[in-house]
Amino acid sequence: MFIWLRSLAFRRTINLPPPALLALSYAILIVIGMLALELPVSTHHGIAWGDALFTAVSAVTVTGLGVVDTGSAFTTTGQAFILLLIQLGGLGIMVFAVLILSAMGLPIGMSHHVFLREDLNQTSVRELVRLLKVILWVVLVCELGGTALLACVTVPEFGWQTGLWQALFHSISAFNNAGFALFPDSMVRWANNPLVNFTIPMLVIIGGLGYSVIADIFQLRQWRRFSLHTKLMLVGTAVLLVGSTVLFAVLEWDNAKTLGSMASAFDKWQASWFQAVISRTAGFNSINLAEMHDNTTLMFISLMLIGGGSTSTAGGIKVTTFIILLLATLAFFRRQQRIHAFGRSVGLEQVLKVQALVVTTLLSVMFGVFLLTLTHDGEFLNLLFEAVSALATVGVSRGITGELDQLGRTIIMLLMFIGRVGPLTLGFFLAMQVPPRVRYPASQVYLG
Amino acid sequence: MFIWLRSLAFRRTINLPPPALLALSYAILIVIGMLALELPVSTHHGIAWGDALFTAVSAVTVTGLGVVDTGSAFTTTGQAFILLLIQLGGLGIMVFAVLILSAMGLPIGMSHHVFLREDLNQTSVRELVRLLKVILWVVLVCELGGTALLACVTVPEFGWQTGLWQALFHSISAFNNAGFALFPDSMVRWANNPLVNFTIPMLVIIGGLGYSVIADIFQLRQWRRFSLHTKLMLVGTAVLLVGSTVLFAVLEWDNAKTLGSMASAFDKWQASWFQAVISRTAGFNSINLAEMHDNTTLMFISLMLIGGGSTSTAGGIKVTTFIILLLATLAFFRRQQRIHAFGRSVGLEQVLKVQALVVTTLLSVMFGVFLLTLTHDGEFLNLLFEAVSALATVGVSRGITGELDQLGRTIIMLLMFIGRVGPLTLGFFLAMQVPPRVRYPASQVYLG
Ligand SMILES: [K+]
Ligand SMILES: [K+]
Repeated sequence: MFIWLRSLAFRRTINLPPPALLALSYAILIVIGMLALELPVSTHHGIAWGDALFTAVSAVTVTGLGVVDTGSAFTTTGQAFILLLIQLGGLGIMVFAVLILSAMGLPIGMSHHVFLREDLNQTSVRELVRLLKVILWVVLVCELGGTALLACVTVPEFGWQTGLWQALFHSISAFNNAGFALFPDSMVRWANNPLVNFTIPMLVIIGGLGYSVIADIFQLRQWRRFSLHTKLMLVGTAVLLVGSTVLFAVLEWDNAKTLGSMASAFDKWQASWFQAVISRTAGFNSINLAEMHDNTTLMFISLMLIGGGSTSTAGGIKVTTFIILLLATLAFFRRQQRIHAFGRSVGLEQVLKVQALVVTTLLSVMFGVFLLTLTHDGEFLNLLFEAVSALATVGVSRGITGELDQLGRTIIMLLMFIGRVGPLTLGFFLAMQVPPRVRYPASQVYLG
Repeated sequence: MFIWLRSLAFRRTINLPPPALLALSYAILIVIGMLALELPVSTHHGIAWGDALFTAVSAVTVTGLGVVDTGSAFTTTGQAFILLLIQLGGLGIMVFAVLILSAMGLPIGMSHHVFLREDLNQTSVRELVRLLKVILWVVLVCELGGTALLACVTVPEFGWQTGLWQALFHSISAFNNAGFALFPDSMVRWANNPLVNFTIPMLVIIGGLGYSVIADIFQLRQWRRFSLHTKLMLVGTAVLLVGSTVLFAVLEWDNAKTLGSMASAFDKWQASWFQAVISRTAGFNSINLAEMHDNTTLMFISLMLIGGGSTSTAGGIKVTTFIILLLATLAFFRRQQRIHAFGRSVGLEQVLKVQALVVTTLLSVMFGVFLLTLTHDGEFLNLLFEAVSALATVGVSRGITGELDQLGRTIIMLLMFIGRVGPLTLGFFLAMQVPPRVRYPASQVYLG
């Protein structure tokens, strides 16, 4: 549908700027999804329009917040619709990212020699098709591999039919960082299962890196040949993963309602690793998040705001944006005119993009929380958690979303939509910027 | 003392960069203050060292958070010491601002023809003395005028001696945005007194504008001759004052524990105006802030982070920084290379300063709150409120500071110190930046 809309736009049948086109295609997908979920065949006992809309928004924006229990309210057909929405929403982002970046004449990551032109001539169309094929391959391999691994857990427990379906559902949901689960308590039942604690996080990490990073890894293979973007993403992700795992374990180790109740240190580390990976983009949980300490919650909120990789299904301001934010601050204190990293330099003009993205994100959170406090009388930290979870399309919950009235739900839905469309839209504006005059060996870092 | 330290530094007897010098002079002032407050003559029944230190930090950084009741714990002598610390702390900032800006060869606001050189030659010393005289005059006129007005309320109520002392104390405390009051409930007793609701906010506003703005107003008199900085400050302050008064009134109008208990609409508007003015920099309160709704609290936190004017006694990221932040975001979306305001342009290189300041401020708040959640088990919103109040040297409280253990108090003291020294220190770094190449008629905006 994206390609179709896109080609329409190129033929000037629809004269919309790409960000509007992106928002429009998501909106259309959401409406179709809502209608599909309203079909009698999708649910056991019917579903209110508001609930169907919320579920469709949550699925298309790969967030994972829910107002009904996915596992019990929907039939397998309904769950399949949700899975399709997740896949289209998640894939759409990747494909659209390629399309707009290529249309802008920016390197699209697979090879630095491939530049696609705005007129989409023969060569570029062929390149584009090749690119999309690679993306589809990565998606297919990861999701089927994940299914196979998860099936080793679910099939013995639930039998072939249900087990395979659960493995497929959770694999696709994890790879697209969607966070939808078929159990009301998400992944709590598998909190101490090593295979699940390996498979789900790996899918989430790979899906959250962004296709250009994966392409660099598989095609270039050597560290020194990686683009600056890939290097920053890999180092940043590794630091965040290790740091948040350790911090989570330290803070929650003795909390009787979370890690404290687990038998062994290994189990505690497993659960910490799982939550630390999941907190930035995917919306699963293997412990009860409402029982976390306030400081762990604050760490969680910070990680959600940082998010995953550009051109991935992850939300937030993105890891590279966060790194550039820190490097720019450092450069300022050192009175440097350029940001240096891995022997490359990034122009300070990038700071404008970072700043615009951070300002829009923080203002959205502020307004969202402010409006939520008007509609709901819950604890402030929980409202903040829920708003950030929606805006960063993470989808973890401390139980507030279920309690919200229709206005509160609308705010959450808007936050999810902005979170999904916004950063990319901004990314588009970024790409449209005047090309930077090259003074030093410059490098492109995707922001937002 | 500042001048003495400064001249020592110029003679290279002490070889410290100005930011370190600033921090050092505050630290010395704090230690002297602590010793003075420990004197038997300062308190009725003695005071713990920790309490004396906390009070000294709070006074020198003109914050106003307290662990003991200023009115009942300290004798008039002790209160006079506190007042002296406030005055030195507050004045020190203004004087130091002139000194470092002049040393950097930047226009210091009084006249755009006055540039003082780093070697402080004869002419510049004479100019400097003239400038300092003007500052001292403004301080003296405002503080004595405020005392006279407040005395009309306090003298009839408490008699000449106590009444005049209270008028003087609150006038100086207000002009320096210090927020120290002689009553345990701050200004609640005068919540409906029109004269107090006029005098205190006016002192706070003038003190919070920054001397360069006041100098522009008194010396240039015509709007079109004002510097861009002055225009931005005046418009920004007016918008913030009107907006926050209205929003405060709307949100709290029916809250039985704040505005709801007041008899007339006039009283409610008075109290809203008072709290709206006070929230950005001074630390008084005429209603019980712990009873505000969560959304009002959130608004309050945002206003505290914005703060007052550069080179004033106010804290926060400063009004102009906030405006530039918004204008830069707007410029980015419009794909402009410069920020435009009032027919002047500001180079985007300013964005670096803004960004560094915002990042440092937000990281400080995050770390502060994070550490506070480790030491204290209170409600998150209250801890956030207290941390921001300390870092932005505002000094309002929802009652947490009194409950903190020694570690928690230390964190609050550090936040106050960073809040007081940090932004200016950063301002110093800013001033040291490479002079911008002038392309358009450029204008200097003080940030932080
Ligand atoms: K998610
Ligand atoms: K204050």
